[in-house]
Amino acid sequence: MSTYKLYYFDGRGRGEISRLILAAAGQKFEDIRYQKNEWPSHKSEMPLGQIPVLEIDGIKLPQSMTIARFLARQFHLTGKDNLEQAKVEAVADTATDLLNKFGPIIWYQEEPQKKASIDEFFANELPKHLRNLETLAKAYNEGSSFFVGKNLTFADLCVYDVLENILEVDANILDQYPWLKTNGQKVAKHPNVAIYLESRLRTAF
Amino acid sequence: MSTYKLYYFDGRGRGEISRLILAAAGQKFEDIRYQKNEWPSHKSEMPLGQIPVLEIDGIKLPQSMTIARFLARQFHLTGKDNLEQAKVEAVADTATDLLNKFGPIIWYQEEPQKKASIDEFFANELPKHLRNLETLAKAYNEGSSFFVGKNLTFADLCVYDVLENILEVDANILDQYPWLKTNGQKVAKHPNVAIYLESRLRTAF
Ligand SMILES: N[C@@H](CCC(=O)N[C@@H](CS)C(=O)NCC(=O)O)C(=O)O
Ligand SMILES: N[C@@H](CCC(=O)N[C@@H](CS)C(=O)NCC(=O)O)C(=O)O
Repeated sequence: MSTYKLYYFDGRGRGEISRLILAAAGQKFEDIRYQKNEWPSHKSEMPLGQIPVLEIDGIKLPQSMTIARFLARQFHLTGKDNLEQAKVEAVADTATDLLNKFGPIIWYQEEPQKKASIDEFFANELPKHLRNLETLAKAYNEGSSFFVGKNLTFADLCVYDVLENILEVDANILDQYPWLKTNGQKVAKHPNVAIYLESRLRTAF
Repeated sequence: MSTYKLYYFDGRGRGEISRLILAAAGQKFEDIRYQKNEWPSHKSEMPLGQIPVLEIDGIKLPQSMTIARFLARQFHLTGKDNLEQAKVEAVADTATDLLNKFGPIIWYQEEPQKKASIDEFFANELPKHLRNLETLAKAYNEGSSFFVGKNLTFADLCVYDVLENILEVDANILDQYPWLKTNGQKVAKHPNVAIYLESRLRTAF
């Protein structure tokens, strides 16, 4: 039996997608969370001097999305053949494009710049990404409420994770995207995910 | 037999990694290259309004790295098991982090801003990434000149592709990174890759 240790900060950030996959799979893991002041003494222990890192059977694997895809394959939360896996990953990369726009604003910017960036993001950036996500869903979901095929994959978890950050700022962003809204509700109701969401640590980011 | 059509601009950019994988695999493909002035009339044909897009058996797959990983799996240019595949992808994502820093400078910035950004990039950003790549190689290469295991994978092609853009600006960046230098030479000498590099279209980016 493999053992899984996930190193990240005490927040959701780029680590939460892997926690969600492990939770959805019902897989126990060691959830190591560094406080900001502890990080400098651990930075040099990480292959790229950054986190998240997954330690699996003693091997340290960096890169948040590489870790997520590895876990998704490990626990059958990705497509059932190569092309379906690619569809799942295309959705995940599209969600990551969105996180790469929004993350730096909410995590690193200070007021008053932050408020201006957030407004600009909601007005001009977000709608494009939400439309793109619905376009992919329509092409891949076989009429279901999941992004690819008829079951939960890590594509759904990825989108859920990214949108959660944005919904915290504006709870109404999905009002014009009913499919995305339903998809998010399906994810939150997945039995293992529901237990995890209920019990997980509340953090500021 | 599947047919492959790759849509991208007439440049290397984010499309070349997939061309390199197809070339290394000896797989024929339709290499559709839009000129800038042709693009507006094709934008709406693409799932995300962007390229690269791979059309495989009539399905349009977006996202450059999703396409690359799909092709790498299709042609056995990725790891032989899940963990080895993750090591390959960790290298690829680390190369992409580097492209995401350098690409926007060379592709989109104008002088005099461009020159200042390039200087800053070479002084402060690049060395960190080159060290990171060597760290991953050391951890994964089993003493070989390839990034993961003992054979060419798409990790090698990805790093080759990204560094090529940077080497065009400064041919000496690998002088202090002998392993990376040798790795690049091995890639360029791979029989199928060598034929491709010799015959491919010369473009400005
Ligand atoms: N491309 C990497 C980026 C990792 C990254 O940016 N990590 C940040 C936290 S989200 C970090 O470790 N920051 C602390 C540092 O760089 O010292 C990934 O997706 O894992
Ligand atoms: N995350 C996407 C980004 C794609 C992207 O930025 N494509 C650019 C060219 S490199 C594009 O299509 N630009 C034209 C446009 O947006 O209209 C990927 O990796 O494929």
